[in-house]
Amino acid sequence: MSYTTKQWMLKEPTGDNIDVTKAFNLITKQVSARDLKEGEVLAKTVYISHDPAQRCWIHRNNVEGRLYRTPIGAGEPMEAFGVAEVLETRNKSYKTGDLIVATVHWTEYGIITPDNIYFKSFGDAADMVTLGLTGMTAYFGLLNVGAATPKDSTIVVSAAASSTGAIVCQIAKNVLGIKNVIGIAGSDAKCAMLTRDAGCDIALNYKSPTFRQEFEAATPNDIDLYFDNVGGEVTDMALLRMKDRGRVVVCGAISIYDRIHEKGGNVGISRASWLQVICHQVKIEGFIIFQFADQFPRALGDLATWTQEGKLKLMKDIIQTDITEVPKGMSTLFKGENNGKLITQLKV
Amino acid sequence: MSYTTKQWMLKEPTGDNIDVTKAFNLITKQVSARDLKEGEVLAKTVYISHDPAQRCWIHRNNVEGRLYRTPIGAGEPMEAFGVAEVLETRNKSYKTGDLIVATVHWTEYGIITPDNIYFKSFGDAADMVTLGLTGMTAYFGLLNVGAATPKDSTIVVSAAASSTGAIVCQIAKNVLGIKNVIGIAGSDAKCAMLTRDAGCDIALNYKSPTFRQEFEAATPNDIDLYFDNVGGEVTDMALLRMKDRGRVVVCGAISIYDRIHEKGGNVGISRASWLQVICHQVKIEGFIIFQFADQFPRALGDLATWTQEGKLKLMKDIIQTDITEVPKGMSTLFKGENNGKLITQLKV
Repeated sequence: MSYTTKQWMLKEPTGDNIDVTKAFNLITKQVSARDLKEGEVLAKTVYISHDPAQRCWIHRNNVEGRLYRTPIGAGEPMEAFGVAEVLETRNKSYKTGDLIVATVHWTEYGIITPDNIYFKSFGDAADMVTLGLTGMTAYFGLLNVGAATPKDSTIVVSAAASSTGAIVCQIAKNVLGIKNVIGIAGSDAKCAMLTRDAGCDIALNYKSPTFRQEFEAATPNDIDLYFDNVGGEVTDMALLRMKDRGRVVVCGAISIYDRIHEKGGNVGISRASWLQVICHQVKIEGFIIFQFADQFPRALGDLATWTQEGKLKLMKDIIQTDITEVPKGMSTLFKGENNGKLITQLKV
Repeated sequence: MSYTTKQWMLKEPTGDNIDVTKAFNLITKQVSARDLKEGEVLAKTVYISHDPAQRCWIHRNNVEGRLYRTPIGAGEPMEAFGVAEVLETRNKSYKTGDLIVATVHWTEYGIITPDNIYFKSFGDAADMVTLGLTGMTAYFGLLNVGAATPKDSTIVVSAAASSTGAIVCQIAKNVLGIKNVIGIAGSDAKCAMLTRDAGCDIALNYKSPTFRQEFEAATPNDIDLYFDNVGGEVTDMALLRMKDRGRVVVCGAISIYDRIHEKGGNVGISRASWLQVICHQVKIEGFIIFQFADQFPRALGDLATWTQEGKLKLMKDIIQTDITEVPKGMSTLFKGENNGKLITQLKV
């Protein structure tokens, strides 16, 4: 069967400080089951996840050949993590009607290659988007890269009200039982949510004029683990407060994705805090979730169990809209206007 | 017995960009065996080591309470790693005439507390200075923090002609048999030494106008391990060339010790290279040698064995002078004018 679909294509790789809603062209095209190759499925997009990393995929200033995936080129389809419903299949593992967790295009109907299909959705498919990528990011970042810390330790999480951050805080408090979980976010409302719902003992608004003093007051015994989603000034501040052998998990750097080359392009780590890396034997480690691909099933199982046990509340911010509004979701994410995991539920 | 001694005291903790030779006062005082407490020795200083880290010990802009040791305060005696000859002793492990490897003062005669005595010197005492602190720094940084890498890997060492750097390069090549050992130094003469004597396959002069291109050409398959002694631009350049799961060992940062707060005090890591930490899952880890104190005997044994086997050539730059010239040694070190481990042999 053949489907008429609207789909967003990247105009061209972008620079810094752009309005992302203007970076894409909406086209109309046909997709047909006749085009399916072995292993592929033709699917209707159900959920489209909006994630900070997507900003890097479309940025022309990536160091050539050194992004963790092939960047999206001029005229190429925009991609996202998401859930799709299989309509036609040449993949023996997935049948018509299955909901699959996959890398999808910003499209109503599309063909998905086997390497972009991760697993069959179970339970609530919107939870799958939340647990599947950002939940697993929190899981591997905190447990594998950060390594379990004693309960009597201090963990600081930046962009703590983000989808990944909120799960990091909850695993730290509700699963590991960590004593001091400190979340940093960009509004008082987010901070209130962090202490009320996300297991934070203290939540700090980084836009407060007294943030630096509040940060120091909140970490009198220094930091065992800093889970970094933002980069920049907050990271610098954390480096000045690390314990001996403290660990910095570099999960993301949303504060710099849209200004890689602005103002000399410095990440904002001071000499004084770099010296702390030596003096306090700090370990800083970056990661991407796909390095743990062989452990996805275990992680997803744990996360689903903890959700059922009430240890994780999944905060979802679902936009129900048609394909024309999808780029606005990306813009909303970068303005920090979402509350919880931002997902477009596609009306097709 | 009582000894008249000349000794250098720090005038006051310093700022950036200073002439270190003017930071100290030379005093004359008496030291007497009657002042010895249990465990202490009275010793004549034989060798005084000049090490980059000493610059941090006297800098007022350390983050308060967060240097790995107590900084040296106004009017307090300047300290150094060194070798001294025991003249009088209240320590059962060390007798008169023993040469001890210790933290000494910039003094002719002085009392050394038991926590500042590391071990009895064996073999050539100047070798002990070279192997004892900087050799062990190279050893633990490369083998413990950096972790042994497969022979078919690329290791880059900054300040490779420094005492620590030259030993890192030689252990990498002559002990581990690493295929690509690349040293970076600040003159063509040092680079010639690195390829001739220190096991480097390639040596690059960072003052060359085409250094960046040479650096890229020298690392076509990227970097497994970057052993960092300098910080700043070279570190930034290395971060842009790391392999997946590559490791950065942060041993020192001599390029910033004298300008911690200059020009905004940024360490010089760009946003683009910070993103590489994520994309390529880079691990950056600082260390100080004292975290491995329990393994000093094994390290020193290995280093001495490798030296006897000809695998390590110890490059020493020994200044024979009296106490009045000691601060000039520190200045020589920071100008990069030494060739190999810079040591003052004290004429008393």
